[in-house]
Amino acid sequence: MEVTDIAEKLAKDMKEISIAEFFEKNRHFLGYENPTRSLLTAVKEAVDNALEFTCQAGILPTIKIKLKEVEEDRYRIVVEDNGPGMLPEKVPYAFGKVLYGSAFHKLRQSRSLFGIGMKGACLYAQLTTGKPIKVTTSTGKKIHNFEIMIDVAKNEPIIVSHTEEENPSKWHGLKVEYEVVGRYVKGDTSVQEYIKRTAMVNPFAEIIFDGPEGKMVFKRATEKLPYQPTEIKPHPYGVQLGVLRRMLSTTKARNIIGFLTKDFCRVGRNSAIKICKLAKIAATKNPKEVDKDESERLYKAMQMVKLASPPTNCLSPIGQEALILGLKKGLKAEHYVAVTRPPSVYSGFPFQVEVALAYGGELPPENAIILRFANRIPLLYNQGDCVITKAIKDVDWRRYGFSQPSDGLPASPLAILVHFVSVWVPFMSEGKQAIANYPEIFKEIKLALQDAGRQMAKYIRKIRKIRESELRRSIFERYIPVVAQSVAKLTNKSEKEILSKLEEFIKRKTKVV
Amino acid sequence: MEVTDIAEKLAKDMKEISIAEFFEKNRHFLGYENPTRSLLTAVKEAVDNALEFTCQAGILPTIKIKLKEVEEDRYRIVVEDNGPGMLPEKVPYAFGKVLYGSAFHKLRQSRSLFGIGMKGACLYAQLTTGKPIKVTTSTGKKIHNFEIMIDVAKNEPIIVSHTEEENPSKWHGLKVEYEVVGRYVKGDTSVQEYIKRTAMVNPFAEIIFDGPEGKMVFKRATEKLPYQPTEIKPHPYGVQLGVLRRMLSTTKARNIIGFLTKDFCRVGRNSAIKICKLAKIAATKNPKEVDKDESERLYKAMQMVKLASPPTNCLSPIGQEALILGLKKGLKAEHYVAVTRPPSVYSGFPFQVEVALAYGGELPPENAIILRFANRIPLLYNQGDCVITKAIKDVDWRRYGFSQPSDGLPASPLAILVHFVSVWVPFMSEGKQAIANYPEIFKEIKLALQDAGRQMAKYIRKIRKIRESELRRSIFERYIPVVAQSVAKLTNKSEKEILSKLEEFIKRKTKVV
Repeated sequence: MEVTDIAEKLAKDMKEISIAEFFEKNRHFLGYENPTRSLLTAVKEAVDNALEFTCQAGILPTIKIKLKEVEEDRYRIVVEDNGPGMLPEKVPYAFGKVLYGSAFHKLRQSRSLFGIGMKGACLYAQLTTGKPIKVTTSTGKKIHNFEIMIDVAKNEPIIVSHTEEENPSKWHGLKVEYEVVGRYVKGDTSVQEYIKRTAMVNPFAEIIFDGPEGKMVFKRATEKLPYQPTEIKPHPYGVQLGVLRRMLSTTKARNIIGFLTKDFCRVGRNSAIKICKLAKIAATKNPKEVDKDESERLYKAMQMVKLASPPTNCLSPIGQEALILGLKKGLKAEHYVAVTRPPSVYSGFPFQVEVALAYGGELPPENAIILRFANRIPLLYNQGDCVITKAIKDVDWRRYGFSQPSDGLPASPLAILVHFVSVWVPFMSEGKQAIANYPEIFKEIKLALQDAGRQMAKYIRKIRKIRESELRRSIFERYIPVVAQSVAKLTNKSEKEILSKLEEFIKRKTKVV
Repeated sequence: MEVTDIAEKLAKDMKEISIAEFFEKNRHFLGYENPTRSLLTAVKEAVDNALEFTCQAGILPTIKIKLKEVEEDRYRIVVEDNGPGMLPEKVPYAFGKVLYGSAFHKLRQSRSLFGIGMKGACLYAQLTTGKPIKVTTSTGKKIHNFEIMIDVAKNEPIIVSHTEEENPSKWHGLKVEYEVVGRYVKGDTSVQEYIKRTAMVNPFAEIIFDGPEGKMVFKRATEKLPYQPTEIKPHPYGVQLGVLRRMLSTTKARNIIGFLTKDFCRVGRNSAIKICKLAKIAATKNPKEVDKDESERLYKAMQMVKLASPPTNCLSPIGQEALILGLKKGLKAEHYVAVTRPPSVYSGFPFQVEVALAYGGELPPENAIILRFANRIPLLYNQGDCVITKAIKDVDWRRYGFSQPSDGLPASPLAILVHFVSVWVPFMSEGKQAIANYPEIFKEIKLALQDAGRQMAKYIRKIRKIRESELRRSIFERYIPVVAQSVAKLTNKSEKEILSKLEEFIKRKTKVV
């Protein structure tokens, strides 16, 4: 064959690949790698969304989850929330088009992120059971019932059915129902554990889980919704050259000064003028007329001017008190401490780390329990790959009185909860179970762990001292009647008096300050 | 705010996300997580493609790679092949549209997979340096010069420039040139190591690497191209219900019998009739008229009928001899063994595992070197997550005479090469550096390792025996002159004669059979 013919043959095979088909084939990227994990992922995507949109609407969430085995290794999942509901014209896209969503372009802490998760569950449901997802929703007006499938080859929604009904009770919310091939297990990576941990960090939510092992109800522990994070603009330090160029070409600002001060956070008029001077661009220039060289100079100048860190009202950490309350809900320990670090920045994105430790009590004596969370979502899989685990292993826990094999997790009756919040969680894959190892993130987690470790060490040292004193005292106390008797005989004084003086003396000497 | 207003506000933010923008923001999914790895990934994508398409055209590859630091942490990459070239009308899409390619829909072993890799390099180049990728190509006719960028918001190519020139020498091939922010390092995850390992498993390729440390030339070790794998049809056991439905609706076959026998592999007329009977569907039914219940019955019936495993002409392993030659190219060891397992199947996809071991010589005595490959591409990152590493750790290497800490990699002068070939490599992420842990794959890798381990153990036992005998002999030999002298004195016989007899005796006794 001639070379040209070969090239033509190769060209014939080249075609566009639908993102839906890509994720259908690579469903393990989304967390559908085996029946056990698939069931968890399918439940999780709906519950995470239910919590997110109910909170965003300022409504105290009540989430009802039903999980029923309809035949062997096949489950029906129903998740219902009391959120604001979804406009009917958006329903087909929100469930039937991969890469469609509201969170991707926003810099604000959110459980939702990619515009992939729920569509992944729909894809997996139709791939394994061939059935559409049923969506029932209302914004308080009419109730809309949908059956949605995905045209995988085109990545477009198929509306299998759509009916309306009256809504005399003015119900609002969203209910999804779908069937998947999956396997229900117990233990650390189970649906039940995911729900338990979700309740731990979302104490304002009522969660009712009706699963294969019966009904579990997590009552609302507080009537107070957490602070609603605000959307922020990108920070100049976190914008790459290519993105800057796109921003220049689409901005509504009429000059560079306006562009810098309005499209970015933390750039005031003075900083903007400084940037323009450094970049040798007229401050009045139309952003759309900035050429390649100028944009590169602008990019470099933006990195050189000193600017405040991005605002942190885009973040909503849990807080030390609520963290400890959450831990107490899930574990029975002897002592709890918590640390919330001040916000920090990686690649221009604000983030914040919280750590809570629980010690002793009914915790297993040999292995520390690791509880990882990102934006209030529990992470159950890929623990070894996660920066949280790496930071925990890097801390010298022996310094705080715990045992720890070399380079390992601490081997003590300890639970370590780490919560990472950010406007953009750098997950290692679309499966959203492990956070990537950015040096700034690693450092902040480690500092939080060390701070919490020191606090816990104080308690443990105190406890040890008390226990040692008690031990000493109990030894003394065992012998003082004999001693008192002998001393009384030798000194001819009252045995009772000697005994009471000795007791008093021992109490004083073994008192812990 | 009313609930309906909130729902409307939320709806306003919902929009489509471009896959190019998705990967631009999540560039770490593609391997652009830090400057060091980014440089490697950017080079790798072009080199992998160059090798693949040159081989596919049946041309012995000559790949020229240039890597030059143009300013601090900024590199120009040039990769040129002597392949068939690309039709000019395809160039903009092949470099400027994410999820566009020829390999995704084919069941055949290939270095190319997703239709993402090279576009990822272009995305990263324009994001970090703002520059287009330059493509020069010819199929032997005119030479076409392109400059391509990606419209990230739309995921469509932008042709910055396109010129043609005459081609009197009838050159054919493809040359790409692009600039990225990156960092060049030495060591296990370096560009140089990637090229070295690529040469190891592609001995038929000539690779010239002109990098920051000077020029390295890997000469062609054989003039024989490997077997060109053939495309196969899907196997009934590897098709999910959702995919079966799609196949039914798009098939060219006019009846179910035709559909089953022509659109699948390993289904003969008899098996097809059996499947139809089990599914209670008329064999003459038009596939487009199969309803939901019927398709589900068909799906189940397809899993129940006994069928031969998929054909394995879609695979092209390296072979034991070539594997050992490859290892010898890269390492100086004392002994080499290799194992090629028979093909096997996971989720309906044929795959095959090869293992080669090198022992002793100049290998570092303390830590085994792990060399992972998939479809002839070296995997350098995410070693801990890869099923290959998990299988290596699971083998009891002490049984074969190596030391091994509990649950760890063997700690002996050992190099372990594992090559996984498949029509579909289940990578853990788009970064393509770790293979997912499917039980069938884990098992095959472990079996191959154990087989190779046993072979190596035989050698090591023999070597140890020889060394022990030599040690014993050398001890004897040191003393026999004294013994001979004494015996001669005692017996009054010739010392020389006694000595020669003793020497002969020792040689016989310490000989290794």
